[in-house]
Amino acid sequence: MTEIEQRRRRAASRVDELKVDALLVSSPANIRYLSGFAGSNALMLLLGSESHFFTDPRYEIEATRNITGKVHVVRGPLMDAVAAIVKRKKLKKIGFEANWLRYDDASKFKEKLPLGSVLHPVGRVIDEQRMVKSKSEIDIIRRSVQLNSLAFSLTLKRVKPGMTENEVAADLEYRMRLLGAEKPAFETIVAAGSRSALPHAHPTARRLGKNELLLIDMGASLDGYSSDMTRVVHLGPPPPRIRRMYQAVLEAQLAGIDAVRPGVTAGSVDHATRKVLKRHKLDREFVHSTGHGLGLEIHESPRIGRKDPTELKAGMAITIEPGVYIDGLGGIRIEDTVLVTESGCEILTPTTKDFVTL
Amino acid sequence: MTEIEQRRRRAASRVDELKVDALLVSSPANIRYLSGFAGSNALMLLLGSESHFFTDPRYEIEATRNITGKVHVVRGPLMDAVAAIVKRKKLKKIGFEANWLRYDDASKFKEKLPLGSVLHPVGRVIDEQRMVKSKSEIDIIRRSVQLNSLAFSLTLKRVKPGMTENEVAADLEYRMRLLGAEKPAFETIVAAGSRSALPHAHPTARRLGKNELLLIDMGASLDGYSSDMTRVVHLGPPPPRIRRMYQAVLEAQLAGIDAVRPGVTAGSVDHATRKVLKRHKLDREFVHSTGHGLGLEIHESPRIGRKDPTELKAGMAITIEPGVYIDGLGGIRIEDTVLVTESGCEILTPTTKDFVTL
Repeated sequence: MTEIEQRRRRAASRVDELKVDALLVSSPANIRYLSGFAGSNALMLLLGSESHFFTDPRYEIEATRNITGKVHVVRGPLMDAVAAIVKRKKLKKIGFEANWLRYDDASKFKEKLPLGSVLHPVGRVIDEQRMVKSKSEIDIIRRSVQLNSLAFSLTLKRVKPGMTENEVAADLEYRMRLLGAEKPAFETIVAAGSRSALPHAHPTARRLGKNELLLIDMGASLDGYSSDMTRVVHLGPPPPRIRRMYQAVLEAQLAGIDAVRPGVTAGSVDHATRKVLKRHKLDREFVHSTGHGLGLEIHESPRIGRKDPTELKAGMAITIEPGVYIDGLGGIRIEDTVLVTESGCEILTPTTKDFVTL
Repeated sequence: MTEIEQRRRRAASRVDELKVDALLVSSPANIRYLSGFAGSNALMLLLGSESHFFTDPRYEIEATRNITGKVHVVRGPLMDAVAAIVKRKKLKKIGFEANWLRYDDASKFKEKLPLGSVLHPVGRVIDEQRMVKSKSEIDIIRRSVQLNSLAFSLTLKRVKPGMTENEVAADLEYRMRLLGAEKPAFETIVAAGSRSALPHAHPTARRLGKNELLLIDMGASLDGYSSDMTRVVHLGPPPPRIRRMYQAVLEAQLAGIDAVRPGVTAGSVDHATRKVLKRHKLDREFVHSTGHGLGLEIHESPRIGRKDPTELKAGMAITIEPGVYIDGLGGIRIEDTVLVTESGCEILTPTTKDFVTL
């Protein structure tokens, strides 16, 4: 049995536990997880012993060649074909991913179902299954993280005052691609000087100055799996105030990593970084969560946030990325991808966290 | 009044027509259209005379600096803050984008509303408003298309046998970026040889051969606006069968463009390309629609498909992209971005459609 078939078997056991006759899977990441399919239009219907995969004729060649289980190539709305199976198999209660399916799509699907069949919203069952990564998934994430760090270091050698943020981003993404990534895992952030105070700044035509911060937040998507890293460097020697800010964020980040181990809650890891920044009177400038899970999506469960009760387990891949943003001055964020292990965690990101001066 | 404020005023008039007290806007492209905001987490609530914008603290600096109307920076779920406004303003009937909002988010929002307030699904009202582009939008799309074609021609000069599909894609995207694009508008397709028969092939480490097809489908995102172009070139002289296939697709593409004018339906344009391919007995190999609208999204209304009854209007930007795919042999698709004008249409894409041999 292939790993993908094993995943489907595990998912099918959840179908039983949820007391539904079938589970309609519509999230592209979940579909990829359960079938290997990476296209843009597909649905799956999981029954106890069978899986049905639906796509359109653009993907006929790929789907019939690569996907195990029953494959349906459908002209017209995929939902019609799903409804036909529901009818033929006399399925009564169809679970669906209410966190993913659009309201309209759920309504339309309801109308297509035979009388006596009902749609039943279920939680993030496949997303939850995806939280703990397999050995082969961890291998890919590890390669994605390494590729991302290598692209960063190759570009960093070329960064100098006068380059634009756009040019830096272009170079980072070019190197990622040449190293084998299929795309950036998200829009690369390159923010110089006071623009680094915008936590999600898109790169612009602004030129790097001779004495300023440069924040880079980048990730690669490799064989579908994301990496995610943030580093801040300084062009010219950093002033003492910036250096103190960097040290405070680094201390918070290390405290966050130190808190990661199986059995603790995601919320407690968030608390660990926040506590350090509070001691430095910088907690009000830390305007986001400490991190997030990553894998087939750049943001997946768990959220490493204030109230997340999820218990960490060995095999989860998460980011730890506290940040401090001061309008007019700048922002510092330091982010690694880490793997929860039996004994604590392993930092996958190999890039130095010393405050690098260019 | 700025253009964005004009858009909101027009949207507000639709709120009245829909007989709702307010419209909750959740689609990121619609939010960008109505506010200029390009971040990842925001909601808007449009009332007749007011607009409310909601985002989280990561975007506080940008939002308060750049967005007109009322801006709410919210810690915690944005929906809570929306519900509070609904309550305070005693709004009874809240329209929402049922084609966009997730089933769960709609359900949760319902629970937060005061008794006596109801959620009411409405169609793609803002999407429809976005179909006809303003002069300033057309200017950006034009620049996006030109940038994309320039990147294509710069890369094409460097393409030769032995390069991988990945390297070609990396080069295309690097040039796009350097020319000012913020990102590719979609995952660049580079497919060599028989892989071109996969309409949506992601580039791989496969090396280009000495005598084969090379299909490139690429688009840039510039200031938020997409371009979209497909060209097929041949390394070495194309065999007669491939040349005939190219000519058939080109004839279909030109027939499609010829059919574009205000007052005709999108479906009739689709019919025009399909008819030509039928005459060449290639209609069964044309496995997708003729094209789609584009703008703030790479795929927007109208869909240039078999049954789309949308009437074309001057100011719409659409693609015309028939394609033919033969398993084992290869695929040909030719795609331009065109603008519907008062008198017919203007082909925005400047790249030659001669069958280029490298």
